[in-house]
Amino acid sequence: MPNLLTIAEIQARIDLSPFNLLLGLRAEAADEERFLLRCSMRPELCGSPTTQAVHGGVLAALVDISASFAVIARTGQSIATVDLRIDYHRPGIAREFLAEAKLVRLGRTLATADARISDDAGTLVASGRAVFMHVPHAPAAEASR
Amino acid sequence: MPNLLTIAEIQARIDLSPFNLLLGLRAEAADEERFLLRCSMRPELCGSPTTQAVHGGVLAALVDISASFAVIARTGQSIATVDLRIDYHRPGIAREFLAEAKLVRLGRTLATADARISDDAGTLVASGRAVFMHVPHAPAAEASR
Amino acid sequence: MPNLLTIAEIQARIDLSPFNLLLGLRAEAADEERFLLRCSMRPELCGSPTTQAVHGGVLAALVDISASFAVIARTGQSIATVDLRIDYHRPGIAREFLAEAKLVRLGRTLATADARISDDAGTLVASGRAVFMHVPHAPAAEASR
Amino acid sequence: MPNLLTIAEIQARIDLSPFNLLLGLRAEAADEERFLLRCSMRPELCGSPTTQAVHGGVLAALVDISASFAVIARTGQSIATVDLRIDYHRPGIAREFLAEAKLVRLGRTLATADARISDDAGTLVASGRAVFMHVPHAPAAEASR
Repeated sequence: MPNLLTIAEIQARIDLSPFNLLLGLRAEAADEERFLLRCSMRPELCGSPTTQAVHGGVLAALVDISASFAVIARTGQSIATVDLRIDYHRPGIAREFLAEAKLVRLGRTLATADARISDDAGTLVASGRAVFMHVPHAPAAEASR
Repeated sequence: MPNLLTIAEIQARIDLSPFNLLLGLRAEAADEERFLLRCSMRPELCGSPTTQAVHGGVLAALVDISASFAVIARTGQSIATVDLRIDYHRPGIAREFLAEAKLVRLGRTLATADARISDDAGTLVASGRAVFMHVPHAPAAEASR
Repeated sequence: MPNLLTIAEIQARIDLSPFNLLLGLRAEAADEERFLLRCSMRPELCGSPTTQAVHGGVLAALVDISASFAVIARTGQSIATVDLRIDYHRPGIAREFLAEAKLVRLGRTLATADARISDDAGTLVASGRAVFMHVPHAPAAEASR
Repeated sequence: MPNLLTIAEIQARIDLSPFNLLLGLRAEAADEERFLLRCSMRPELCGSPTTQAVHGGVLAALVDISASFAVIARTGQSIATVDLRIDYHRPGIAREFLAEAKLVRLGRTLATADARISDDAGTLVASGRAVFMHVPHAPAAEASR
């Protein structure tokens, strides 16, 4: 099943959310296999002034957002996050983070997607999963989140 | 076992993190039973311009942060988040969110804490849990996150 | 909102499942606040011959089952588990385990419930949460699991 | 990094646990990429007499066990499960279930592994993840679970 949305349409949906704009997200690729999202490190996203690592809440948001757009890219429909889980593997120290999200299961009511976040060297920093519920009758222009 | 840190010391630790400052967090109470943290809604924390609901990533960060300070308040030591889980129960529409975190288990290597986030009316918006690892030899002044 | 099912009706539903019978489960109490389920230790539920601790899979099943009946007791309807999370706090060494489950959120499509499992001394051994989907049109006599 | 244990050694460790014997588990393959475990359906593993689907607790146990042996195969050391998460994608109706587990992160203190469980047709039934803690000084012959 091919994607319904182009990268430009996905980026437009991402940018409807003020918090997404604050994170500075760039949709990079979306095909049937995966959705790629980039986020550049900025001082205000820092969790610790000592280590300069990104805040864990930012990584959680990247898992939620990239996983959600792995679903939205396919369906074009709005969704609501049911639950979200993140594992933190290493301190997130990078100029840029790359989130790679994949659909696990696209059901009629619910959808599940995985996301892996890596640093500049391609090393896995965090990974996780989210379960979403389709919100069928939302207007097409409405942000899902 | 009583807390080791006062509310002023907890607030100082919270404010070491630039991302925490961006969220605008206020430690309100900490005793042996629970830790209370407030976060005021601001336009840039919004996830959806249509519903005006807070972004799910902000709620995830609030679960992580409030749960972590339920541990730090008790031990005074730095910790690293091992994993984080959030359930989204209702759209987060409020002027202010209150996170209430409780220790579930304080072990030698790991600690587990729950957090519940409610809106102005006291209605549960999201809840979750995090597992943390103690980072014993970090300097006392270092932020844990 | 009061429960729809009596303890005898809950026990009858539990006993429809052969795996539940193998675990030897006894519904003990169900009110608006909580559902209590007991499981006696038996040699074949052991995970480690050295420690005599119960297998983690049995504790996972107890979280799933007790949380599910915290929902079913209230609604009388069949449900399907969407996802399940368990934290293992201590080795489960006991003659009998007590699972205490509580509804967190009862929604139209989904329900969330927490469960805590303790040993003979009342010490917390494991705890967790499950999300369920209502399966509305299943025949009343059908087991949900 | 190659595995330390042969399939025969893994099977011997699996069979130390009475509950694993009750589930009837067969280690099928283990290499640097993945660990494969089979479990045949039996009437007493059934969760619902109506659908004949396997009990969700059995699938949870399969995620826990297969993920744990993806770690143990590599290290030879005992581990304890810290936490476990399972997503149920479809009713588990099969003569035999195949669990495929992969290491996500092998750290000094903790390890993370994913598992996917499929039915006779290779269709995904459930999937999940577990975090484990190494238990370094346990005797080599001791079961980890």
